[in-house]
Amino acid sequence: MATLFLIPTPLSENRFDTVFPPCNTEIINRLRYFIVENVRTARRFIKKVNPAVNIDGLTFFELNKHTDKKEFTRFLHPMKDGNDVGLMSDAGLPAVADPGADIVALAQEQHFTVKPLIGPSSILPALMASGFNGQSFSFAGYLPVQNSERIKTLRKLESKIYNDHQSQIFIETPYRNMKMLEDILNTCQPTTKLCIAVDITAETEMIKTKTIKEWKKQLPDLHKRPCIFLLYK
Amino acid sequence: MATLFLIPTPLSENRFDTVFPPCNTEIINRLRYFIVENVRTARRFIKKVNPAVNIDGLTFFELNKHTDKKEFTRFLHPMKDGNDVGLMSDAGLPAVADPGADIVALAQEQHFTVKPLIGPSSILPALMASGFNGQSFSFAGYLPVQNSERIKTLRKLESKIYNDHQSQIFIETPYRNMKMLEDILNTCQPTTKLCIAVDITAETEMIKTKTIKEWKKQLPDLHKRPCIFLLYK
Repeated sequence: MATLFLIPTPLSENRFDTVFPPCNTEIINRLRYFIVENVRTARRFIKKVNPAVNIDGLTFFELNKHTDKKEFTRFLHPMKDGNDVGLMSDAGLPAVADPGADIVALAQEQHFTVKPLIGPSSILPALMASGFNGQSFSFAGYLPVQNSERIKTLRKLESKIYNDHQSQIFIETPYRNMKMLEDILNTCQPTTKLCIAVDITAETEMIKTKTIKEWKKQLPDLHKRPCIFLLYK
Repeated sequence: MATLFLIPTPLSENRFDTVFPPCNTEIINRLRYFIVENVRTARRFIKKVNPAVNIDGLTFFELNKHTDKKEFTRFLHPMKDGNDVGLMSDAGLPAVADPGADIVALAQEQHFTVKPLIGPSSILPALMASGFNGQSFSFAGYLPVQNSERIKTLRKLESKIYNDHQSQIFIETPYRNMKMLEDILNTCQPTTKLCIAVDITAETEMIKTKTIKEWKKQLPDLHKRPCIFLLYK
């Protein structure tokens, strides 16, 4: 029975041995079929993992928001012949805040083995390092871009901190980070705590928890840096 | 400035190189102070990471639900003198579904650097492999033990799947897994999907998604096996 391997990819340019267990390399080196968010990024990653790889001997299927769902069945065809397949996104864990969940759902429906590998994600490292409640938390992905909708969502998330004692985690497109920070600081209560986790796994990583009131005194520069926001009381 | 390292520990008896980046070993070997959930488990782990370690030269502070919060300040004392400290729980990530968040919060308050290391957790691997929504999800930790409260909670979680399109994740004490499974199967709608992820990172790992109706036909044996439950539509 073939296996669909879920392969984490780097979040930053840092050394691989800070984020990948050695076994991931062994598995990547064995695979001949990959479902990837972006073929160029995937080829570059695989070459870095295994400089001796015959990259033209590999088959890549591209999976992103433009991919027709009808194609998914074709992507899993190699598995019917007993070939393992690797699924990877551009950065971090496939299918978590990234494409891939539909392919995994199809593999589950077709009773293939699904094997997640261990690797870097920004969500749990940020939560661990925030000091916030790790017994109950929620990840909301991207918040609405439209202003009044976004403020309403922020208010709703903040109410869950106080009513449900639940840590709230969300992300933003890097070039909009400063606008998001501004919206958080203008919307949340002064005593609410905000953790900003930026450049996770990179040399420049910073994970800081302060109250809204404290953050207002000095804004960090988050422009175009990968960032995750966490709220708690 | 001293750093509080958040150190993942194994979830299973499997080979370390399947779950730990090599750099974690380097960091553990450098540390002389550890805040741990259980001293015996921590000593065994450190000896396995570094068989040549002088274990009696290390200082351990025990942190669990019986630890008085007043002691936390003392645990971070070595950091005031410039010593890095490692925080680890018995299995998985410290401070996520495990003790440690209060210590991290204190380290954040005192403006120490907090550095999470990459390693095994059951939550995101289970979510990745479930095929469920990874753009929006919620982790609820342990559900109430008392029967009517637990059923009420399960109903509430199920409603969030349909109303908020949010994957719901929760855990149970291993010896109560079969009771939990029974409660889920008796409470949720036949078409709701349940992913059962058991023995994550172990040789016996199984992560299967089926509808409630399908699971009812054949129950997996989850008794005393570490397990995580996920619900989605």
